[in-house]
Amino acid sequence: MGLSEFELIERYFSSGTIRREDVLVGIGDDAALLQVLPDHDVVSAMKTLVEGVHFERGAKPQALGHRVLAIALSRLAATGATPAWVTLSLALPEADAAWLARFSAAFTALAQRYQVQLVGGDTVCGPLSITVVASGFVPRGQALQRGGARAGDLIYVTGTLGEAGLALLAERGAVHLPQKLRAKFRARLDQPQPRVAEAQALRHLATAATDLPNGLEQGLGELLDASAVGATLYLRELPLLPETTAWLPAAGGPKFALHAGGDYELCLTIPAKHQAAAEAAFSTLDCGCTWIGMVETTPGLRCVLEDGSLNTLR
Amino acid sequence: MGLSEFELIERYFSSGTIRREDVLVGIGDDAALLQVLPDHDVVSAMKTLVEGVHFERGAKPQALGHRVLAIALSRLAATGATPAWVTLSLALPEADAAWLARFSAAFTALAQRYQVQLVGGDTVCGPLSITVVASGFVPRGQALQRGGARAGDLIYVTGTLGEAGLALLAERGAVHLPQKLRAKFRARLDQPQPRVAEAQALRHLATAATDLPNGLEQGLGELLDASAVGATLYLRELPLLPETTAWLPAAGGPKFALHAGGDYELCLTIPAKHQAAAEAAFSTLDCGCTWIGMVETTPGLRCVLEDGSLNTLR
Repeated sequence: MGLSEFELIERYFSSGTIRREDVLVGIGDDAALLQVLPDHDVVSAMKTLVEGVHFERGAKPQALGHRVLAIALSRLAATGATPAWVTLSLALPEADAAWLARFSAAFTALAQRYQVQLVGGDTVCGPLSITVVASGFVPRGQALQRGGARAGDLIYVTGTLGEAGLALLAERGAVHLPQKLRAKFRARLDQPQPRVAEAQALRHLATAATDLPNGLEQGLGELLDASAVGATLYLRELPLLPETTAWLPAAGGPKFALHAGGDYELCLTIPAKHQAAAEAAFSTLDCGCTWIGMVETTPGLRCVLEDGSLNTLR
Repeated sequence: MGLSEFELIERYFSSGTIRREDVLVGIGDDAALLQVLPDHDVVSAMKTLVEGVHFERGAKPQALGHRVLAIALSRLAATGATPAWVTLSLALPEADAAWLARFSAAFTALAQRYQVQLVGGDTVCGPLSITVVASGFVPRGQALQRGGARAGDLIYVTGTLGEAGLALLAERGAVHLPQKLRAKFRARLDQPQPRVAEAQALRHLATAATDLPNGLEQGLGELLDASAVGATLYLRELPLLPETTAWLPAAGGPKFALHAGGDYELCLTIPAKHQAAAEAAFSTLDCGCTWIGMVETTPGLRCVLEDGSLNTLR
């Protein structure tokens, strides 16, 4: 490509990125140099998106710039970490100035919102793909993991489920949403909101957490496996928008919201003794947080359907 | 691909990776959780290699597994950091078990040699490309950067230059090396040795450092620009193997070793007052370290040729 790595980064990313005090050396040197608060640990999550696999050819660069960073921040959020630093590797077939301007504008806008500084990366020629490593910190011993859930814990999920999944079905022509609803759900798919503040607010109360890139059933399943416990969910408790509920039959039935991915909500487990404190904390969250089931000693994941029957999910 | 991300990582990487005490959560959770020593800073370097761009189609996976990690560790080494943690993103057209077994064996062997733990990553379907983020730590305030060189500093380079460049020329058919020499130089190209111990031994003496992926002229040039100084090099002082010297005419002349990249040596600047201490430290290094020139106030990079004439490089 015509521009050197540094020229590219300087032109499109450097001006838009914030300057954190804990970044001693950022873009432009051999490596980033970062200062970590005393008594804090570092948390780091990596995500790659490939054209033709994770997004369609010709996908809008502004959607990609937001999405790839949001997905990495979402993984970080699941630990309760405060995001701080990001590195970005861009493989581009050519140095397309208009593409880069839009990608970097969306990327840096989201980075600013979460006070994340772009501290380094790599820019190479190749089939379009994007790798982000988001890092941050958490007070020592307070990081949430998948493996901490205990029998008797209450299971909660942030926000609402199923909208991104319906948007995907609409893109594929499998459901025919009205134009306005399709745009609303599509925004959910393109612009996931990492639940950073939510996890931080619940960090001291939860025993385990994970985000849900591939839907509730898979994400919660992995959390239960890591914790060596099982659970029962209540399908009627799942947080769905009324518009989502209306389109469930077209999407294959009421269990659709269990499988639908891309919403990037968090699933958390909270001991019963912290229920009141957690629900008080939820009331301060914009996105809300809903009780959906219970952790149990019996392995596996079960779901009570709307007719009261019990269905084994895994 | 047939195997899930976790299955892939578990099968090929997890068993080979070391377990560091400062890794609280590694592969398999949403994010890595790392403990940083008190009064140390974190250093992080990212590198992407793309098939058809940075390596030929059909390149040996064992060479790639070594090379991509070595390149990232080399960038880290330039700061004087102690490498500790690595994340790996693999985009693969298919889950080729034989390819993965060889790639991971070489990757984990090099990681073990430097006591680096694979703590996370991503595995996706896509055109073959590899992204590595190597991270480590350095005592607070002791990280080497490009921008610290001062007029009067002595310029040193580790090891020897030009072998990887000659190997590349040989691969392209531009020079015709004897078989044995070609294999020797090719090993240098395929298996760069990050100068980790060397930079640590010189960290307290050097004012600036960088590694040389694109050759001495470019690497030193960037270091001088970052430091707002210039330099004069002495061509006859460049550390070359006798076999390299013998093939310089075929490679385009004596200045070849200035431009040739891929050796991943370090270039360091050392104040004259530390010369004796530095040379004592060099004597403990396997690869050696050679004086090649002086930092000067006049911007630009000059080279005294073997006939004594002065040549402006940049």
